[in-house]
Amino acid sequence: MTEQQAERPTSTGIGSIEGVAVGDTFTDRRALADAGVHRALEAGIVGRQAIGAESIVLNKGYEDDEDYGHSVIYTGHGGKDSATGKQSKDQKWARGNRALQVSCDQGLPVRVVRGHREELGPSTGYRYDGLYFVKRYWEDIGKSGFKICRYELVRDDIGDPPWGTSGLPAPPSRRVGTIQRIVRSTAVTQAVKELHNHTCQICGKRMTVASGPYAEGAHIRALGRPHDGLDVRENVLCLCPTCHVYFDRGAIVLDDSLHVIDLTGSGLAGRQLRQASGHDVDMEAVRYHREAAPSNQERDAEEEERGGSAL
Amino acid sequence: MTEQQAERPTSTGIGSIEGVAVGDTFTDRRALADAGVHRALEAGIVGRQAIGAESIVLNKGYEDDEDYGHSVIYTGHGGKDSATGKQSKDQKWARGNRALQVSCDQGLPVRVVRGHREELGPSTGYRYDGLYFVKRYWEDIGKSGFKICRYELVRDDIGDPPWGTSGLPAPPSRRVGTIQRIVRSTAVTQAVKELHNHTCQICGKRMTVASGPYAEGAHIRALGRPHDGLDVRENVLCLCPTCHVYFDRGAIVLDDSLHVIDLTGSGLAGRQLRQASGHDVDMEAVRYHREAAPSNQERDAEEEERGGSAL
Repeated sequence: MTEQQAERPTSTGIGSIEGVAVGDTFTDRRALADAGVHRALEAGIVGRQAIGAESIVLNKGYEDDEDYGHSVIYTGHGGKDSATGKQSKDQKWARGNRALQVSCDQGLPVRVVRGHREELGPSTGYRYDGLYFVKRYWEDIGKSGFKICRYELVRDDIGDPPWGTSGLPAPPSRRVGTIQRIVRSTAVTQAVKELHNHTCQICGKRMTVASGPYAEGAHIRALGRPHDGLDVRENVLCLCPTCHVYFDRGAIVLDDSLHVIDLTGSGLAGRQLRQASGHDVDMEAVRYHREAAPSNQERDAEEEERGGSAL
Repeated sequence: MTEQQAERPTSTGIGSIEGVAVGDTFTDRRALADAGVHRALEAGIVGRQAIGAESIVLNKGYEDDEDYGHSVIYTGHGGKDSATGKQSKDQKWARGNRALQVSCDQGLPVRVVRGHREELGPSTGYRYDGLYFVKRYWEDIGKSGFKICRYELVRDDIGDPPWGTSGLPAPPSRRVGTIQRIVRSTAVTQAVKELHNHTCQICGKRMTVASGPYAEGAHIRALGRPHDGLDVRENVLCLCPTCHVYFDRGAIVLDDSLHVIDLTGSGLAGRQLRQASGHDVDMEAVRYHREAAPSNQERDAEEEERGGSAL
């Protein structure tokens, strides 16, 4: 992979590897690397801040790891004494550890490999166990007394797990509460965010979180039926989380000159949509979004009081 | 249900009904209402803006409905001529239609009932088909030429659908792209948002979207292993989407006097957390969150350049 390719989030480094199925096994780290599953012979994490983490290997390398199969509490790399193999220094939020943070904040999948030393691993060699998402990251004091970087990873695949299903930990309960909002990420939304240097096209805010810049990709015309918007750059805006909610929930729309029309008092009226070279906006999608916004907000107070219906 | 109860989002009106299982059938609308599944004899939507929609009935009442089983494109109520039963006026974003918007923006579940006139409905009477979520709402021009309120509802239950599985539309593909962020909603987060009148406790912003006020509930100490934070009011903050991302992603923490410590340049340093009567904050959780924030952001530029590892 060249430097130039590595800068692109659509690089083949992230996600599934063509020709490698969940459950495929490899005799050693060399075979694993040659297949492109985990392109390093010793490190537990392969990745870069610019693109996120590609893959991790679980093989009892860190005493603080907790492997529940469907979810994994993973420890970052670094801080070990090379002679004794014991944790002797604080870990840092750098290199692969930083890459895993980026995977979390951008919603990117990470390939997970289990080795033979893991309880849920294969009897020999290494096994590709599919894609996981990094649900969150935090720092902790490990058993060694030194600072460690920690991550919760959650399995993404819906098929049977490659470690079998008998006598093993049950998957965690599906959820706590219900979902108010989901922000999705695609290769296209990643590209648009980079074109805008993660700056909100509406309010101009550029957010920085622990992993680096943070923005969200908003589809102008929604994907899926019945809207059937396309996952192409022209149908995506780079927005901050607040402007994204305003845009998705009928609070703001754009006019034909790409100025904000404010429907609910967002304070954004008249803002001009920021442009970036290489990123055209589909005006048909802008019109579709505008026409779909709930326009009639007048309501009968009495009707509201008695609700939608009564017995 | 009294007025007072109806104002509480934790009211028994929302969610599953004790003793009623997915697939249970009812001879008529009276039986359905008596069981508490759909507490109205004629209206297709039961709900109020203050609490969201409780339930809807699908029974070929509106020509623009599209029923795919796992997902439903639903039409709001109103605008029909009572003599002819035909759409003769624009629908309004009021009453039950407004309640369904609130269900969407707050992430609240809606009970779905199918009647015997639906292709996927029971042969006679009405059947409770479980909980759905309102994925989005928009307005459209219906077949009649009048304005209609529309909603996409998605089935939440993971068990086999009560309409059987043979010869029926396949569920929609699981996702487009991957998930960058999920905001969850519980009865507790709803209560905290109401105590703060949907005003962000950090930046003071109060957002209004098409359905009304919008805020997010943030757990201070995360739920689930290994953090094991509790879903109680003292462990929840009412935040705007942007401050929520900052808070979850290691950009801001709170000191022991509940002032913001800014770790990444959010511009929020020194802000005092807004308080509301009836909402205490768990200081242990605040300390846990602060200590878990990635603290070591210094990094070696050279190390970053070469990434987490290389072959």
